[in-house]
Amino acid sequence: MAGEKAPRRPKAETPKGFRDYFGADVAERKAMLDAIASVYHRHGFDPLETSAVETVEALGKFLPDVDRPNEGVFGWQDEDGDWLALRYDLTAPLARVAAQYREGSATSQWPTMPKGYETGVPMPYRRYAMGPVWRNEKPGPGRFRQFYQCDADTVGSASVAADAEICAMLADALEEVGIPRGDYIVRVNNRKVLNGVMEVAGVLDPADPGRFAAECGIVLRAIDKLDRLGVEGVRALLGEGRKDESGDVTKGAGLGADQAEIVMGFMAAKRDTGAETVARLRALVGASTLGIEGVDELETIAALLAAQGYGPDRIVIDPSVVRGLGYYTGPVFEAELTFEILDEKGRKRQFGSVAGGGRYDDLVKRFTGQSVPATGVSIGVDRLLAALRAKGRAGGETAGPVVVTVMDRDRMADYMAMAAELRRAGIRAEVYLGNPKNFGNQLKYADKRASPVAVIQGSSEAEKGTVILKDLVLGARIAAGASLEEWKQRPAQLEIPRAELVAAVRQMLD
Amino acid sequence: MAGEKAPRRPKAETPKGFRDYFGADVAERKAMLDAIASVYHRHGFDPLETSAVETVEALGKFLPDVDRPNEGVFGWQDEDGDWLALRYDLTAPLARVAAQYREGSATSQWPTMPKGYETGVPMPYRRYAMGPVWRNEKPGPGRFRQFYQCDADTVGSASVAADAEICAMLADALEEVGIPRGDYIVRVNNRKVLNGVMEVAGVLDPADPGRFAAECGIVLRAIDKLDRLGVEGVRALLGEGRKDESGDVTKGAGLGADQAEIVMGFMAAKRDTGAETVARLRALVGASTLGIEGVDELETIAALLAAQGYGPDRIVIDPSVVRGLGYYTGPVFEAELTFEILDEKGRKRQFGSVAGGGRYDDLVKRFTGQSVPATGVSIGVDRLLAALRAKGRAGGETAGPVVVTVMDRDRMADYMAMAAELRRAGIRAEVYLGNPKNFGNQLKYADKRASPVAVIQGSSEAEKGTVILKDLVLGARIAAGASLEEWKQRPAQLEIPRAELVAAVRQMLD
Repeated sequence: MAGEKAPRRPKAETPKGFRDYFGADVAERKAMLDAIASVYHRHGFDPLETSAVETVEALGKFLPDVDRPNEGVFGWQDEDGDWLALRYDLTAPLARVAAQYREGSATSQWPTMPKGYETGVPMPYRRYAMGPVWRNEKPGPGRFRQFYQCDADTVGSASVAADAEICAMLADALEEVGIPRGDYIVRVNNRKVLNGVMEVAGVLDPADPGRFAAECGIVLRAIDKLDRLGVEGVRALLGEGRKDESGDVTKGAGLGADQAEIVMGFMAAKRDTGAETVARLRALVGASTLGIEGVDELETIAALLAAQGYGPDRIVIDPSVVRGLGYYTGPVFEAELTFEILDEKGRKRQFGSVAGGGRYDDLVKRFTGQSVPATGVSIGVDRLLAALRAKGRAGGETAGPVVVTVMDRDRMADYMAMAAELRRAGIRAEVYLGNPKNFGNQLKYADKRASPVAVIQGSSEAEKGTVILKDLVLGARIAAGASLEEWKQRPAQLEIPRAELVAAVRQMLD
Repeated sequence: MAGEKAPRRPKAETPKGFRDYFGADVAERKAMLDAIASVYHRHGFDPLETSAVETVEALGKFLPDVDRPNEGVFGWQDEDGDWLALRYDLTAPLARVAAQYREGSATSQWPTMPKGYETGVPMPYRRYAMGPVWRNEKPGPGRFRQFYQCDADTVGSASVAADAEICAMLADALEEVGIPRGDYIVRVNNRKVLNGVMEVAGVLDPADPGRFAAECGIVLRAIDKLDRLGVEGVRALLGEGRKDESGDVTKGAGLGADQAEIVMGFMAAKRDTGAETVARLRALVGASTLGIEGVDELETIAALLAAQGYGPDRIVIDPSVVRGLGYYTGPVFEAELTFEILDEKGRKRQFGSVAGGGRYDDLVKRFTGQSVPATGVSIGVDRLLAALRAKGRAGGETAGPVVVTVMDRDRMADYMAMAAELRRAGIRAEVYLGNPKNFGNQLKYADKRASPVAVIQGSSEAEKGTVILKDLVLGARIAAGASLEEWKQRPAQLEIPRAELVAAVRQMLD
């Protein structure tokens, strides 16, 4: 190791903006992702794991005359002069994969492909992906430079049935991880409807879509901030602009009052039933071809969902959902958790959004020139996990091990045999491997490990052929003031024949 | 997306040396890692997931006057001028974590720690880690720049009971993933014994350990190559050096014939039983204090393993195992698969090593100045997976979905309802979402997806209230020449009442 030549001691520090995950943190996230994967699998989605590293050009970051790409990604130049970077999401790699492994484009560069993939990815391609992504952004509290994403997308289907399927699957996934029905809602909207409304408002010219691009972008981002800014804040952004509490001014879209009113009307178009909302939207888009198409699509999605039993208690049409990203071209959706939690200041607030997505028909085109329809959803892994923890529903194997203590270091073989026996019976168990001199330290260790049972065998027990079991769960409860009743009912310590070790531990664990 | 400004189309390519994993490849690896994790968990090991990015100094790569670190790692300079890099293994991050989160060193920089970790990692710290690592090396066939490692280590225990536990756990893990007893062997040795032998041979001076460092390194690497070079090749490397088939010369350790003979005797010290091997080693190390200590340790490990029921059919003492890495300080171990496979030239050969590890007592010291004993094992994920595939034992959920075909695109809602019903019954199912015009394409798709059953409902079936089930597994067997008997016994196509869809599909899947 080069470390031996170190002129000074290196600092033992996680790099700024990164973090480490220990024990239960890892297990809980894994349990959640496994549950989501089982739902995706049941829907016919296949896993895909792309490399963490992409060429910068595949990611869509171009560097005409800058020295290194530090706008959002972690990048470096390889020995051939190519710029490489860590992926910043799971969508860009999917678009690259869909282009690279399209039917009929097989090359000798392809890795050995599993059954069904030999000539390319199946089309339509339903895939899910879970893994870390990296952002070269200023870190902040709860804002990390590496975090998990969990995506499901269908590439190669222009049918809104694909969008409906994603919405239904999202609802299923939330229930599977432990969010009960009634505690979440999936909201669906359609960018085409918004564009139709913009056309009516005179902020979009279907004959020249680029003409009001800047204004449309501002409108989109303004609507996306409805939750945070409220109706008046959005109205200000649609017009001249908005000054926030700190005095900073955000430029507005410059819409006239009448135009702004039409957009505001769109946001408020949600009615009690899906049919009424659709009727209201139909009125709002007037004669706009794109708008009518969008409303038709929403109507179809609602019908497809109803046929599968997904009613408005789970999925609703909600025109206030627009999603900030520019690349969506049709249906957009968002999952929100509707229960209340206390924020850091002790105020009640709704938990909010944990997933979102939509249709993006142009991402693969970047590579091939051909438009490939696609739709998908991304679940915010850390937010959903935080929600499960807030509800006490984060799973994962977090039970501590039975700790076999070491009373006599010469009889290590006996202690290890005990642990092996317990394990063979499927019980998590370990021998204390630190310095056994101080027995108090062994019990402190067992406590730290959240151990339910300590096994003790000193020389006198060994002679008698017995072991002592210490019920640490009960011990903790007694220490925390359990009733005399409890204390009597169940002894916190028990001497049993050595031969009954497994049976007695199992009973104590029940 | 910046892509919209692209002056030309980006290439859809995985960067050189990286690869993508599809469907069954991902599922099989996950199933294997999950099985291994369950064994580690049962032994009391906790998961740890460190960030993929480390500071270069924490990794132990120092850059006094080179512009960028391209020796083995992918690195870049962050906005503060610090050099960061992707981890190249899981051991260096563990050493960093053990130093950073040691008991009593908590700082406000620590993330929220789960129960038991609030004041630091428990000591001894049993942790496992699974995930990709990155190497900036010349890629080659089967040699990638990103690959998985799967490690388990115990930090903070000087007891060889910790080494014995790792060996036993490794055997359990191999059996758990599907390598039957008899098809693998874990070999154990001890660097201290080798050093004792070197002392006897006069190539190591206990009073000045650095004196013959270069020679010792050559001896170590020579023994490690016994499999590949044979006895004579190793003997040449112990002496003047070795010329390979291409004429390249590798410098030898320069040992005299007598010295070399002592080392060769060590490599061949394995006897029929552990006790005989230990006796032979005891004779070889003579009066060397370090050597005697090493032999004692091996004897203890064998006794601890025997007490847990791990006999020489699973774990043996084998002096020919030394492991190449310089940082091992005590017991070293290696798991080898002993069954034969055919190599790329059709020749039979033993599968070989799939895991290895040992005791390294100095890695944490780099950070803290204090020696922290540690021992661990790393499983070669890709090699073990290849072995399981060769044995037909790679698991993973790879069953294709039932495909509901689309005969009439206006009745998409009916088809989606069918798929939803199947899924609610736990059956993997999907509706064909491509262009439904060409029915042949739908069946081709179902075939590509390895679909066991296609569900078909045209307008006439819809009127009658029936659906047709096509048994694609049987269909494939008939196409491949199944007997008439089979054909008669079980119809490849079946018309059933719509209400019996789930029951009939389930029966066909059985």
